[in-house]
Amino acid sequence: MKLGFVGLGNMGLPMAKNLLAAGHEVVVWNRTAARAEPLVQKGARVAATPAEAAKGAEVVFSMLADDRAAEAVALGPRGIIEGLAKGAVHVSSSTISVALSQKLTDAHASAGQGYVSSPVFGRPEAADAKQLWVLAAGAKADVERCRPALEALGRGLTVLGEQASLANVAKLSGNFLIAAMLETLAEAFAFTRKSGIEPRQFMELFQNVFARSPIFERYAQAIADEKYSPAGFAMRLGLKDVGLVLEAARAAEVPMPLASLVRDQYLGGVAQGHGDLDWSALGALVAERAGLPGPR
Amino acid sequence: MKLGFVGLGNMGLPMAKNLLAAGHEVVVWNRTAARAEPLVQKGARVAATPAEAAKGAEVVFSMLADDRAAEAVALGPRGIIEGLAKGAVHVSSSTISVALSQKLTDAHASAGQGYVSSPVFGRPEAADAKQLWVLAAGAKADVERCRPALEALGRGLTVLGEQASLANVAKLSGNFLIAAMLETLAEAFAFTRKSGIEPRQFMELFQNVFARSPIFERYAQAIADEKYSPAGFAMRLGLKDVGLVLEAARAAEVPMPLASLVRDQYLGGVAQGHGDLDWSALGALVAERAGLPGPR
Amino acid sequence: MKLGFVGLGNMGLPMAKNLLAAGHEVVVWNRTAARAEPLVQKGARVAATPAEAAKGAEVVFSMLADDRAAEAVALGPRGIIEGLAKGAVHVSSSTISVALSQKLTDAHASAGQGYVSSPVFGRPEAADAKQLWVLAAGAKADVERCRPALEALGRGLTVLGEQASLANVAKLSGNFLIAAMLETLAEAFAFTRKSGIEPRQFMELFQNVFARSPIFERYAQAIADEKYSPAGFAMRLGLKDVGLVLEAARAAEVPMPLASLVRDQYLGGVAQGHGDLDWSALGALVAERAGLPGPR
Amino acid sequence: MKLGFVGLGNMGLPMAKNLLAAGHEVVVWNRTAARAEPLVQKGARVAATPAEAAKGAEVVFSMLADDRAAEAVALGPRGIIEGLAKGAVHVSSSTISVALSQKLTDAHASAGQGYVSSPVFGRPEAADAKQLWVLAAGAKADVERCRPALEALGRGLTVLGEQASLANVAKLSGNFLIAAMLETLAEAFAFTRKSGIEPRQFMELFQNVFARSPIFERYAQAIADEKYSPAGFAMRLGLKDVGLVLEAARAAEVPMPLASLVRDQYLGGVAQGHGDLDWSALGALVAERAGLPGPR
Repeated sequence: MKLGFVGLGNMGLPMAKNLLAAGHEVVVWNRTAARAEPLVQKGARVAATPAEAAKGAEVVFSMLADDRAAEAVALGPRGIIEGLAKGAVHVSSSTISVALSQKLTDAHASAGQGYVSSPVFGRPEAADAKQLWVLAAGAKADVERCRPALEALGRGLTVLGEQASLANVAKLSGNFLIAAMLETLAEAFAFTRKSGIEPRQFMELFQNVFARSPIFERYAQAIADEKYSPAGFAMRLGLKDVGLVLEAARAAEVPMPLASLVRDQYLGGVAQGHGDLDWSALGALVAERAGLPGPR
Repeated sequence: MKLGFVGLGNMGLPMAKNLLAAGHEVVVWNRTAARAEPLVQKGARVAATPAEAAKGAEVVFSMLADDRAAEAVALGPRGIIEGLAKGAVHVSSSTISVALSQKLTDAHASAGQGYVSSPVFGRPEAADAKQLWVLAAGAKADVERCRPALEALGRGLTVLGEQASLANVAKLSGNFLIAAMLETLAEAFAFTRKSGIEPRQFMELFQNVFARSPIFERYAQAIADEKYSPAGFAMRLGLKDVGLVLEAARAAEVPMPLASLVRDQYLGGVAQGHGDLDWSALGALVAERAGLPGPR
Repeated sequence: MKLGFVGLGNMGLPMAKNLLAAGHEVVVWNRTAARAEPLVQKGARVAATPAEAAKGAEVVFSMLADDRAAEAVALGPRGIIEGLAKGAVHVSSSTISVALSQKLTDAHASAGQGYVSSPVFGRPEAADAKQLWVLAAGAKADVERCRPALEALGRGLTVLGEQASLANVAKLSGNFLIAAMLETLAEAFAFTRKSGIEPRQFMELFQNVFARSPIFERYAQAIADEKYSPAGFAMRLGLKDVGLVLEAARAAEVPMPLASLVRDQYLGGVAQGHGDLDWSALGALVAERAGLPGPR
Repeated sequence: MKLGFVGLGNMGLPMAKNLLAAGHEVVVWNRTAARAEPLVQKGARVAATPAEAAKGAEVVFSMLADDRAAEAVALGPRGIIEGLAKGAVHVSSSTISVALSQKLTDAHASAGQGYVSSPVFGRPEAADAKQLWVLAAGAKADVERCRPALEALGRGLTVLGEQASLANVAKLSGNFLIAAMLETLAEAFAFTRKSGIEPRQFMELFQNVFARSPIFERYAQAIADEKYSPAGFAMRLGLKDVGLVLEAARAAEVPMPLASLVRDQYLGGVAQGHGDLDWSALGALVAERAGLPGPR
């Protein structure tokens, strides 16, 4: 395919490299053109503007750091939208806001162009090793047209539907999962460390009991299926145990705000009569507060 | 070994079964004696009181539902402490409070008996299949004496030191990890679901990107090692992304209190000048608030 | 009346002084007896133990620092319960736990004695100036019997019913109101200060608009009456404004966890269809999560 | 003065009325012109567009519901900026974002016009009775020029400096104070109600002890002055009392997330060695996390 690629940062550069390696023609653009050097050696052509990188391409990728940069290269002066042919597709791989993704959808539609939102999971090393996990959402025909290029970027692809911004929702949710897990680990290590357990001991435990176990997957499945009974471990027991954590952390003088939050969720669940559901029924409590169906 | 086992609930029953299977002599006690039936068929003897189950045993296990029950069978009338010989050891496998564990330590010490705290990770099915992960803390000689029995219960053993209640700290921390992950998943599913992503799609993503990946293990290692720079993904980018989550969740009308908590942590980190550390440096922010060394 | 008074700390000393000034006979006890000196000059007699202070008294007060001390002087060796006559009343003014208050109720009842829980609002200066606000709960006859003494301590008395521990619930709730207001003020000052408003300017505003206005009283009345419509200011406007606070605080780099919590409450209220109720309908949202009737 | 007034909602209408009553000439505009009827009877003239209302005015007020409406009447087609004379001043009374206030400042400056941000505290009844409290920030000469009109609107005026958006920061902080107090009251009433105290009893207490007392003012002063020692009531006692609240609320099954948040703040303060400061030193803990000077 004839491709454009706009944005050769830590992620964009190895991604463009893999597109070249898969045999595609790639015209690249980057704010500091020198970054393109290694790609030129592999056959890429360098454009003077994003619009020029888009000109003649069937599909043009963009991979930028934030909303401001992503909007500038797409909709700003000499942006992608100016160069892209009618019917051609802009694939946005940046981690951007849902609102900007919707704005880009509309802008490209008005210009008779396609728009596919396609953020990726993985670090630069994973990008380099073609080990990214790729998301895609947008009009079905557009996604299918881009598929060969998307599959050249990683080890797998999840297609999320026809509304492009859903891919951004999913990507942001993934980053939220990590950030929340970091806070969880941060509180657990502070609690155990201050109580006198060496970090390497708790790490050993984490490795053996949690990191490689199907436990989180099994619970995610329960929440996905909204299946909270019969309880494997009841919410009232979860309340008891998180209460014991907070008591011990109080004695050790370790504030654990996430533990407090979870305790209050369980306490509310029990107070509202759901104490016999599985402790994964947090899924239902949170859903209810969002206006979705709650515990049954 | 001559063992006692007090408490034949969903966990205790299969644990006692595995001790018998490993060739130990086991005297059991349960509030409702009929629960002991299947063990008797495998050679167990039934005692009339916890004290009687402890009498003559080198090691007596207890596995009860909560602090009240655990304290009653150990220190109450006709409790373990009354029957256990000097020098013999009480192994408490219940998930109990740190405070009760310390009280049991002192009580048994006063009686010239040993006390090992040994809670386990795993559900009844895992207990049955000898797949528990077993913790142990207590005086070194006591732990070593119990080791053959402890190893008969599961697939691995982590010894946490000479202060028995540390095993309770670790067990409670493990349950906190799960409960926090449940809240995390609850918010992520509510957000994606209300935004229009089908749960099975987000589940597929979770499986492929998170559940079986070394990502949490790598971050746990960073927090264990307090190694937050160079940043793989900087705290200020974490702040940006969690901010985008909250914006999109605001638009979709999904309250995400854990996301708010994490955002405020990152905002504090950035405001205090740590925005260029890795986003796992939540580990340092939480530690600092506990009076431990903070970000450097 | 013949009174006893146990505990002559910063609060107890001026309280006992006012009982003497009102013409009562008072026998006092304090761990360090020297504290009683100024009272002796005003006619008090010093007892050697709490039991002795209680002996012969119609009513014995206790005012201690915490649960441990309050329990020790009441139920410990040579404690109040040993000296108090059948039918006489122990008035506990300490800020103690609801659980201990219930335990004291039961213990005194078993001993044929009365127990009135009577914590107070006010600092030592207010105690000295007879400006405390006094709570009381307990058996009606007991409260009435103590009334002359209770009225000698402050400027007003609220009787809360026959279950003694209700007075502790009310006292703790009052301290919670203050602590929560402190966090509120802490966040508001940090936000305005870092944005460039001088603290004395925001203080002027606080004085003129909030501190002396009936605004909080009016809202408390709405929550007491569960009257949330018609809305004076709708929940969806509250959501908008707290959202603007968080946006501006994000830009100024000021974490405001309480503002985040309130925003999430409003967002949940709106998501569940209550956006047109008055923003004081937080009262109903919180009640619902406690298993009480929610928004209508 | 010759004035314009744009936006005759529940607040704008009585404000414009008071400007007329103070003897000013007022040209008004509202989206639905019929709203202007009562003002016309008092001498107001009706303009066809915001620009026309601004034409010839020394000062033009705007009072709209949100950012979108406020931006439209100011900067949109036939907006205030098109009609206002060079040197004349736009006074924005709407509760809008800090970001929009900065944008309006810049836009009017570019057009050679003045901009004063002047949100108000008070409900429609207060506006009608000239009992609003008025904020103002902007270039000194502009504020002074508007002063007679601003003073015609309420019972007092606080001038916050030359950066217009500071008035928006202050207004938003005020609304945050109310919303936070609502959550506080919501939790206190849920806790006392579920524990068995009648709402009217707790209301009586609130009125007598808190609503009309100088307690919040005194604490606000401490935070404004950053004066946290000597402690009137030490942070470690605050921790104790909020801990007792949470224990009792746990027993009564009442989730109190704000109480949890405050407890965690105190626990962090104590863990970091500040337990002997006054409990109002939450002011310093929050400030520190915002990158301002912390506890000393």
